[in-house]
Amino acid sequence: MQTWEAITSRRNVRSYSGQPIATADLDQILEAGRRAPSSQNWQPWAFIVVTEPGKLGELAKVWRGAGHVAGSAATIVVLAPTSDNTYQRAQFDLGQAVMAMAIAAADLGIGSCHSGVQDIELARQLLGFPDDRDWAFLLSLGYPAGRPLATIKNPDRRPFEEVVHREHW
Amino acid sequence: MQTWEAITSRRNVRSYSGQPIATADLDQILEAGRRAPSSQNWQPWAFIVVTEPGKLGELAKVWRGAGHVAGSAATIVVLAPTSDNTYQRAQFDLGQAVMAMAIAAADLGIGSCHSGVQDIELARQLLGFPDDRDWAFLLSLGYPAGRPLATIKNPDRRPFEEVVHREHW
Repeated sequence: MQTWEAITSRRNVRSYSGQPIATADLDQILEAGRRAPSSQNWQPWAFIVVTEPGKLGELAKVWRGAGHVAGSAATIVVLAPTSDNTYQRAQFDLGQAVMAMAIAAADLGIGSCHSGVQDIELARQLLGFPDDRDWAFLLSLGYPAGRPLATIKNPDRRPFEEVVHREHW
Repeated sequence: MQTWEAITSRRNVRSYSGQPIATADLDQILEAGRRAPSSQNWQPWAFIVVTEPGKLGELAKVWRGAGHVAGSAATIVVLAPTSDNTYQRAQFDLGQAVMAMAIAAADLGIGSCHSGVQDIELARQLLGFPDDRDWAFLLSLGYPAGRPLATIKNPDRRPFEEVVHREHW
């Protein structure tokens, strides 16, 4: 798929068809995350990819907004270390990695939705990650249950001319 | 360009050829950022696109790591509001918007590099943004001075099998 089509067809998908994602496709999505840039190339992330339905069902309980994880074909748990500076740079860098994965997924016709994790201890209990990883995001993945990904002409966003300033505020 | 080529050819570019970026291309990059997802679609960002050489030279002084901004064809200043929750969600969301723009730029053969802003008051003085925007990132853009963007076979990243865990840590 052309890049612009992937960028403009990406949308949050919370309802999935049940079709599994081929391992090679999942690995390609993860590879996009691995390649993301980060502050001084510190690569703070670790990814745990979960596909077992029972575990996805449990993982969906880490936040009230994560229910869609239960029906996903796979969910990537993106883990970060304890914040190490006042800019909370890991937060920004994880946003970059997650977006790269969401675009790589869209390129394959795979929908995605990111979600925060409120109950980090439940996630830790389920997945066994170490204590020095103290926050996480989820990126759920799956083929859309309804309409396939397609270019969105008028996204639900603030108008371009309101968001973009030229040379000066 | 194919999405996978854009993702795998994106790299930090800090040295630019001097060739200007067409306004339509710049707008396409900005549009990728505008379309990025964010927490409950709150779209915390504002973008100021700077192309005036004198202003770019001044903007390069906001952080010791931002010197490359001076030679960029354009730099997008991504502004965020004061942090509004304990998760610092704006930080994550700006990471998503910046990554979408970096991939959109790579798709056009345009190099990019993100940078933090240490001296926010200098940036404010230059650009005139309001007091309730209290932190910022820069995404500098330009055609590479040296080798053009091309697929990177072995990126300088931790190995895939170290980053990715399957089902469990």
